[in-house]
Amino acid sequence: MTDNTTVQPKLRLGMVGGGQGAFIGEVHRLAARLDDRYELLAGALSSDSTRAAASAVELGIAADRSYASFEDMAVAESDREDGIEVATIVTPNHLHYAAASAMLRAGIHVICDKPLTATLAQAEELAELANASGLMFAVTYNYSAYPMVRLARQLVAQGRLGDIRVVQIEYPQDWLATNIEDDDQKQAAWRTDPEKAGAGGSIGDIGTHAFHLAEFVSGLKTTELLADLTPFVGQRKLDDNANILLRFDNGAKGSLWSSQIATGNENALRIRLYGDKAGIDWSQENPNYLSVSTLGGSKEILSRANASIPGATGYSTRLPAGHPEGFLEAFATLYRDIAEQLNARKSYRECDPDAMLVPGIADGLRGMEFIEKAVGSNVGGNIWQKLS
Amino acid sequence: MTDNTTVQPKLRLGMVGGGQGAFIGEVHRLAARLDDRYELLAGALSSDSTRAAASAVELGIAADRSYASFEDMAVAESDREDGIEVATIVTPNHLHYAAASAMLRAGIHVICDKPLTATLAQAEELAELANASGLMFAVTYNYSAYPMVRLARQLVAQGRLGDIRVVQIEYPQDWLATNIEDDDQKQAAWRTDPEKAGAGGSIGDIGTHAFHLAEFVSGLKTTELLADLTPFVGQRKLDDNANILLRFDNGAKGSLWSSQIATGNENALRIRLYGDKAGIDWSQENPNYLSVSTLGGSKEILSRANASIPGATGYSTRLPAGHPEGFLEAFATLYRDIAEQLNARKSYRECDPDAMLVPGIADGLRGMEFIEKAVGSNVGGNIWQKLS
Amino acid sequence: MTDNTTVQPKLRLGMVGGGQGAFIGEVHRLAARLDDRYELLAGALSSDSTRAAASAVELGIAADRSYASFEDMAVAESDREDGIEVATIVTPNHLHYAAASAMLRAGIHVICDKPLTATLAQAEELAELANASGLMFAVTYNYSAYPMVRLARQLVAQGRLGDIRVVQIEYPQDWLATNIEDDDQKQAAWRTDPEKAGAGGSIGDIGTHAFHLAEFVSGLKTTELLADLTPFVGQRKLDDNANILLRFDNGAKGSLWSSQIATGNENALRIRLYGDKAGIDWSQENPNYLSVSTLGGSKEILSRANASIPGATGYSTRLPAGHPEGFLEAFATLYRDIAEQLNARKSYRECDPDAMLVPGIADGLRGMEFIEKAVGSNVGGNIWQKLS
Amino acid sequence: MTDNTTVQPKLRLGMVGGGQGAFIGEVHRLAARLDDRYELLAGALSSDSTRAAASAVELGIAADRSYASFEDMAVAESDREDGIEVATIVTPNHLHYAAASAMLRAGIHVICDKPLTATLAQAEELAELANASGLMFAVTYNYSAYPMVRLARQLVAQGRLGDIRVVQIEYPQDWLATNIEDDDQKQAAWRTDPEKAGAGGSIGDIGTHAFHLAEFVSGLKTTELLADLTPFVGQRKLDDNANILLRFDNGAKGSLWSSQIATGNENALRIRLYGDKAGIDWSQENPNYLSVSTLGGSKEILSRANASIPGATGYSTRLPAGHPEGFLEAFATLYRDIAEQLNARKSYRECDPDAMLVPGIADGLRGMEFIEKAVGSNVGGNIWQKLS
Repeated sequence: MTDNTTVQPKLRLGMVGGGQGAFIGEVHRLAARLDDRYELLAGALSSDSTRAAASAVELGIAADRSYASFEDMAVAESDREDGIEVATIVTPNHLHYAAASAMLRAGIHVICDKPLTATLAQAEELAELANASGLMFAVTYNYSAYPMVRLARQLVAQGRLGDIRVVQIEYPQDWLATNIEDDDQKQAAWRTDPEKAGAGGSIGDIGTHAFHLAEFVSGLKTTELLADLTPFVGQRKLDDNANILLRFDNGAKGSLWSSQIATGNENALRIRLYGDKAGIDWSQENPNYLSVSTLGGSKEILSRANASIPGATGYSTRLPAGHPEGFLEAFATLYRDIAEQLNARKSYRECDPDAMLVPGIADGLRGMEFIEKAVGSNVGGNIWQKLS
Repeated sequence: MTDNTTVQPKLRLGMVGGGQGAFIGEVHRLAARLDDRYELLAGALSSDSTRAAASAVELGIAADRSYASFEDMAVAESDREDGIEVATIVTPNHLHYAAASAMLRAGIHVICDKPLTATLAQAEELAELANASGLMFAVTYNYSAYPMVRLARQLVAQGRLGDIRVVQIEYPQDWLATNIEDDDQKQAAWRTDPEKAGAGGSIGDIGTHAFHLAEFVSGLKTTELLADLTPFVGQRKLDDNANILLRFDNGAKGSLWSSQIATGNENALRIRLYGDKAGIDWSQENPNYLSVSTLGGSKEILSRANASIPGATGYSTRLPAGHPEGFLEAFATLYRDIAEQLNARKSYRECDPDAMLVPGIADGLRGMEFIEKAVGSNVGGNIWQKLS
Repeated sequence: MTDNTTVQPKLRLGMVGGGQGAFIGEVHRLAARLDDRYELLAGALSSDSTRAAASAVELGIAADRSYASFEDMAVAESDREDGIEVATIVTPNHLHYAAASAMLRAGIHVICDKPLTATLAQAEELAELANASGLMFAVTYNYSAYPMVRLARQLVAQGRLGDIRVVQIEYPQDWLATNIEDDDQKQAAWRTDPEKAGAGGSIGDIGTHAFHLAEFVSGLKTTELLADLTPFVGQRKLDDNANILLRFDNGAKGSLWSSQIATGNENALRIRLYGDKAGIDWSQENPNYLSVSTLGGSKEILSRANASIPGATGYSTRLPAGHPEGFLEAFATLYRDIAEQLNARKSYRECDPDAMLVPGIADGLRGMEFIEKAVGSNVGGNIWQKLS
Repeated sequence: MTDNTTVQPKLRLGMVGGGQGAFIGEVHRLAARLDDRYELLAGALSSDSTRAAASAVELGIAADRSYASFEDMAVAESDREDGIEVATIVTPNHLHYAAASAMLRAGIHVICDKPLTATLAQAEELAELANASGLMFAVTYNYSAYPMVRLARQLVAQGRLGDIRVVQIEYPQDWLATNIEDDDQKQAAWRTDPEKAGAGGSIGDIGTHAFHLAEFVSGLKTTELLADLTPFVGQRKLDDNANILLRFDNGAKGSLWSSQIATGNENALRIRLYGDKAGIDWSQENPNYLSVSTLGGSKEILSRANASIPGATGYSTRLPAGHPEGFLEAFATLYRDIAEQLNARKSYRECDPDAMLVPGIADGLRGMEFIEKAVGSNVGGNIWQKLS
């Protein structure tokens, strides 16, 4: 169990997007609530003003703090003594840039869903702004907050796998196997529309998660990639399937497969790393276990929160072994870690090292580079593209 | 996703037990918080007054609503205009009876951890009191709130399995495989002490969960049982392993195995039902899936929230398929359902039928009968004991 | 890979039963053939003489060595210079006694399917005869020859599990979930007929396997059992489901569940042992792996033939790790071990210790006692029955 | 169970390679023996004459039919009235061409291990020779003979998956994760030596299996590939890891990963196909099951030999469901099918269609093209290469 001994006032939180009919906004709210470090006090919940107001009522947000636009929210809240300290941005991709910029300019910390923006150029500008601001900027690559993912990262860092040679990462789903965007399915509609999603289809929506995880766990940097992107369904303009070859800075190689048309897959993110001493395997759909196979040894199934596990899963977990934690808990860990970081800043104290694992603006920017280079590789005829 | 369209004020919640060093109290708080239907406003968090006060500070409970005893809390809160509406009782078993009685007498609804009391006699008195009170009395057999458990129950009720013939249920753990109670492990200490736990060791702590689940899913009543109970470790007075034969009112048979010394098992509750048309299999440690095998057909793996699943998992779940939910989410569903029931009472509206699945005082009482009869069977030389 | 360096002439084999339409006879032939230590030269393949002759032709048995009865075969073969050395008996249970006795009296070694006989009295007589004969008598409890089962036995013997406390064994199938015996299904017909099967239904057909495995792996002796036997289907006279409590000579306890009506189960034999140091888990349907969980450690998945595995799976396996072996390979190991034992006798050399693991007449006799005591317990109202 | 009603004399078999210390030769012998359709009568078992002779003695081959070379065997056996009808070639790759050619020229049918030859040029010549000869030429892509692989193929052919969009195939092992070829490990030594293995390392040894399976199951033709090949270990000259992108003639895409350094993987061949109606998933290490997920439906686990399975697994399997078959059984099915084909030829009867699924010279040739094009792609800087 997390040690919650220090009592801090709750952080004042605002939300951009996430009104009625949205999906990920509710996930963020559940995640923010679980560890009780936030109060949701303000919102620009929808560009539709009726929906925005109704959503605010549902969420218990006072009418005078339900705003018609994020610009209004940024200005008004920064003027209040008790204004929000941090805003979470859960709109479709194309609005991230403007919303996040507005918050930063108003001196408000930012939590932003991924991918960071709609274009790499926006991302670069935003990164500059964020870095100059001195404010916290978190990007919710939430899968990196699963306890066993963090443990995997730690095992790699400790050398348990030896030199990494191969990184295989895959993220298949099937919810876009038919053209549901033509039937008013809102989540599908914006994700398949380049105006709202940006240049990446599956690679933006889920490939960025996979890419982030590969680097987060391996501790390696991707130096180049070669991508074959395909829109399989109907008149779709963005990829719904991507096969990508990867090369890493230590000479490791690998592949990344993202798909939203892989029939029978729900949300099957999986990462496998193979070093010259050991290999590991983790699957998001059964996330409480991590398989570790030592060369010349047997396969060990490590279980979240099991007392025998070396190292630091303790901070990232709430329940004893055998009591499964899931997607929300990992997402909540990000929110708790962000609160921990902000509170540490406020009280001039050191932050728990685990809480420093929250992906930031640099990770967001790198995800955008991943998309840009994957698209570039594909357009160029599946040629290698170097990453910075 | 749950439809949260009706906005209700949060329920005013008090807690008995659950101070610093406790385990299940924090689980109840996380569960209560997840769906945002409660405010924790009062507590009698520990019999140690220093610990009680410190715990209250941590939890943001006002000093004047942190009580030295549950009796005080019941009296004082029922006197307040804004007093708690519902109290959750998370003490060791031997205090359940007195605490719950005090709340009921004060007109406060009760949520009580299992087993209901320390003795069957207490349970019977408490049931009488609860029934007479007209108040809600929920018992947190939390495993019954997993979406796939509720789906299993529904499939059985719809006749998908045909006539049930065999019920196999098991609940092995290993955390009591050594005498950790002698090393000041607080959770182990009271659970192995008949003064605090009552007559059941593993059968009280986890066997009652298994027994409840067997009847909850199968829709059958156990008519008799025959138990072989063993304390394997050290000088332990209560069983840490139990093998129990079961017979049901429709002629079905089965067995129940509970163990806290089954090395390598964390919290491996599993239920299997076999009918003359189909069989089902569910495991708590990978709870998002339910296996259904039709006679003469193949095995189907049903996945939580998958659109193809017939029926009503929607209400009991928050996330799309492939985004695993776990122990906390199921526990939170009980809390949400209790809130739904209480709000329905207050607004004179009908309650969602799914929300009516919360185990109540009768289930708590039945669990106590299970313990009593199992102990009786064992003492009598492993003879059949009839249940009411 | 097995070391086959010593070249021995093939053993001369006869078969009783196993003609056209039989099931297990073909399994025995495949098993005998795999390692090439036998020639099938004679047979009394069916009590129907036309079928016997036709079966012999198919199997390449010379017409003059295809016998109308096992009595004829025993006499005629023992008179031949080149007569069979060993006979395998694969008839329904009620013929085992007479057929095996005839062979022993004729000086022919015996391989007999399980259960040993139809009654305990027959088994006792047969055991006396076998022991007096000095001949080899093998009983095909074939599941004990799986490499990972033998490894499990070895780990227990080496103390890796510490003191065994709990033994849970189960063997569910579903092929008798309807009364297929009424539709001329030959395999079902004799197994559900007390005249042919003996007193045990599921407990005789598969429960004996489970019981043998429990003692084989644990190295313990069952001291008493308490059984609840049920015929669920139609007018069936023999149990098709059994829940049995077990007690062992070291104080361990456990349960055995055999069922032939557990819808969705094909042949799901599984054994779990829990000691005070570690626990193990093995499932027949995925037999190349053995799970070993050390108390306070993680779960290890041992893989057949993996170089890292301590000890002697080498002799019992033919293929490298990752190349799955199955049911036939384990069955063949018994046949190879029997050949190894017989060849060792002939050449006055020591036998490989692994080859000594073949179950013998004492195991067959014990299986019959298991059936007798289970039936006795059930008839007596589910009371404890002591085993010898 | 296979219907064995037609009795045929056994086929006279010779073997090239497979002497003491070899691995795959023994597998071929076990496979040939299981269904009893062959007699091993002649051999050129080793280029080392002492080892050849000793091996022959062990295998019961008469001294005068143990040859010093395959050339001698071809000539001498074709001169005998009772000479071998079919020869199986289990040498290292570089000898396949000469040995197979010698047999064909002598009028002897050929069974040849994969890859077909050491170079594509050899393969083309051999194919011409084989096609001109009118003789049978089987290539042991043994994984295609697993019952559930054949079922997968059939489901695809029946349109159960709809149009295939994505083919993901992987074949990781780890036995070459260190440079064991430097320690006299014979199997490693020739496989890592271009003189003996040809141009492919992992892609030749196991990638060809994966490639064959992809086309066998999907019924598609690969039109182009793009390969990134890496020798990770020591001074190795051939790839021990390969990431390959694939494109198919219907527009499907996919990837193939073969690795012999993926620590923790034993022989983890897995194929996944995703169509617009359903997806399938099969893993060699647990081969008795095939997962089929219908879009908008649940996941079904089909089990080998289960009565409910639509279609023709019957011919390719020997045991009832729940009695696992493995690697040897699948390999034996190829041998049985070859025998069935040869016997059909001899008796001018039609062959069971399932027995026609044995991979032939065209499959062998295509495997060589796969290697050539993969190497060409890699050498050319990971560019697309078209296949014929």
